[in-house]
Amino acid sequence: MQKKEFSVTPWDVKGEVDYERLVKEFGISKIDGKLLNRIKKHTKELHPMLRRGIFFAHRDLNWILDEYEKGNKFFLYTGCGPSGPIHLGHLGTWLFTKWLQDVFDVELWFQFTDDEKFLFKEKSFDEIEKWTHENILDVVALGFKPEKTHFLIDTKHAGLMYPIAIQFAKKINFSTIRAVFGLENDANIGQIFYTSMQAVPAVVPSVLKKKNIPCLIPLAIDQDPHFRIARDVYPKLGYYKPAIIHSLFMPSMSGPKGKMSSSEEHTAILTTDKEKEVENKIKRYAFSGGRDTIEEHRKLGGNPDVDVSFQYLRFLFEPSDEKLEKIEKDYRSGKMLTSELKKITIEKINAFLKEHQKKREKARKEIEKFIYKNSS
Amino acid sequence: MQKKEFSVTPWDVKGEVDYERLVKEFGISKIDGKLLNRIKKHTKELHPMLRRGIFFAHRDLNWILDEYEKGNKFFLYTGCGPSGPIHLGHLGTWLFTKWLQDVFDVELWFQFTDDEKFLFKEKSFDEIEKWTHENILDVVALGFKPEKTHFLIDTKHAGLMYPIAIQFAKKINFSTIRAVFGLENDANIGQIFYTSMQAVPAVVPSVLKKKNIPCLIPLAIDQDPHFRIARDVYPKLGYYKPAIIHSLFMPSMSGPKGKMSSSEEHTAILTTDKEKEVENKIKRYAFSGGRDTIEEHRKLGGNPDVDVSFQYLRFLFEPSDEKLEKIEKDYRSGKMLTSELKKITIEKINAFLKEHQKKREKARKEIEKFIYKNSS
Repeated sequence: MQKKEFSVTPWDVKGEVDYERLVKEFGISKIDGKLLNRIKKHTKELHPMLRRGIFFAHRDLNWILDEYEKGNKFFLYTGCGPSGPIHLGHLGTWLFTKWLQDVFDVELWFQFTDDEKFLFKEKSFDEIEKWTHENILDVVALGFKPEKTHFLIDTKHAGLMYPIAIQFAKKINFSTIRAVFGLENDANIGQIFYTSMQAVPAVVPSVLKKKNIPCLIPLAIDQDPHFRIARDVYPKLGYYKPAIIHSLFMPSMSGPKGKMSSSEEHTAILTTDKEKEVENKIKRYAFSGGRDTIEEHRKLGGNPDVDVSFQYLRFLFEPSDEKLEKIEKDYRSGKMLTSELKKITIEKINAFLKEHQKKREKARKEIEKFIYKNSS
Repeated sequence: MQKKEFSVTPWDVKGEVDYERLVKEFGISKIDGKLLNRIKKHTKELHPMLRRGIFFAHRDLNWILDEYEKGNKFFLYTGCGPSGPIHLGHLGTWLFTKWLQDVFDVELWFQFTDDEKFLFKEKSFDEIEKWTHENILDVVALGFKPEKTHFLIDTKHAGLMYPIAIQFAKKINFSTIRAVFGLENDANIGQIFYTSMQAVPAVVPSVLKKKNIPCLIPLAIDQDPHFRIARDVYPKLGYYKPAIIHSLFMPSMSGPKGKMSSSEEHTAILTTDKEKEVENKIKRYAFSGGRDTIEEHRKLGGNPDVDVSFQYLRFLFEPSDEKLEKIEKDYRSGKMLTSELKKITIEKINAFLKEHQKKREKARKEIEKFIYKNSS
């Protein structure tokens, strides 16, 4: 049995990701039918990303529900690393987080890790600041409740965050960072420290309210390692370990495995793309599961499992399972051609982006409502 | 030629310090007569710690004077690591810094490195905070000009400092930290990061005023390694390298070499000690250069070079060179006994502490004038 080579860190996803192996290596649990049913008791409907196994794994989600059922509400914590424009691959976690906020009616702390991106990218801080501002517009546009949503920007909120971060830092040594992330002696000392800053928002509400509040972190699975380290530390500081719910990566344009990345900016679909750009990108770059000729396709059928256009529908743009199944069936049977599938996807994306771009413009006036006002 | 073993890091001074070797290893310059004369041109008198070679080495002090002579004033930056009570050993650098502030009429930025002490000591943050408050009282009591003095407390001013610190952190890797401080893989990630925070105050005025302002850092030589690393980074970020003026360590009670340390709290003379405590400590613990019997002492004389009471006079408490020389001569000849020398030292220390303790009480109401008001 040949072991496929891949690696997943918060900064780099290489090769074809074997999620089963990640689950084992990270020591996380798959979300099973029983857990889905338990969630459904509270949410009535399950979000498509749960039904479809896109949010597929977790840590301590049963505990979060135990506490919730006892009347002890959790808060949500997720984030954004601002180093470039937002593309469709970013949206899944955030849209799912918005759903969680709505159905559970909970607070959300949203972290913009501008320090991380500055420390890990060959970019100036000015450039990172520009992207922080741009990315904030996209996040606001998604419709989080302003009265229950608090943005933390690491450098802007360092007065609040750094004193908490050093509490974590004191209990994490370089051996651990090296083992988990593969950082070596040539890593800069900000990169080495950074995990402490990402640990912080999971306790900020507890620090501010001086009581222990459960935290649930929706994230793409590449962000898990920070918390794998930090989860050992939370109880030592008197806090609950945050629970986590993990998603697969939204596929890149070039194929179904791996992760859509800002290093493919020219092919990734950005939230600011015009209709025509979306059309061109999908038509030219979206990896197809179809056959080489129409004749072959009609005869043998396409493969939706590797077809990026289909996967975009599955991940984000076709909430109806019925419709999705019909598309899948028709594509697999050869009844639906790649060009037809791409047309559906292009329309869906453009319909979403048209609304998103309007909200994104409106967001310019709403930012201040979301940024946490640090009293200290 | 046998190499004596000693080590000097900002957290630990071990063995008998060979300052000549430190000068070579650190790559710093001795202060010579020519440089003293140049300083004297501006200060009229030389501070006793300069005349007596206690501030004995430097980096780029001639450049600081070049700039000063061109009308480009420097500012001073020094600090305090708050992990215990202030003892006499701490005061030298600060009293010298006060003199520099007075004679050059310059701004002072004073850093309280509470993060450092939390990260390097087995102490809770609450305890460190207590000491920060206590130590601030001592620093205020020394009489710095409030309108020209700005205290930075690392955790309180992290909103200002952390965003600057990551600029340094990005350009320092773990190999350098390991080589300079001997930190290994078991070091916590806050310790590894910390040098970036200590680098910051040397550019804070430049950042705030958006222009490059020369900086002079008076410090005991054990603090040099942070700046040896950071000085390579300042120009990369567009700042001047700060100049440094280095002092010897105030001797500990147990002997003339090494450094007075808070780990000998029971013998170190604290700024809060009562008259009687000072008397007891000097009488019982101050290492003597005298002979075993009065007869021997009268005949052979004492050794002021290793006598801790004499060294305290030389470092801090006898500003008159004439009087100090007379004491030295009398002690060396055997005319002055250890008990007589100790009596002089006890009186001098108690006279100083009586005033200091009054000012220290008054300081409780003055703290706020000194703490930098972070506009952000």
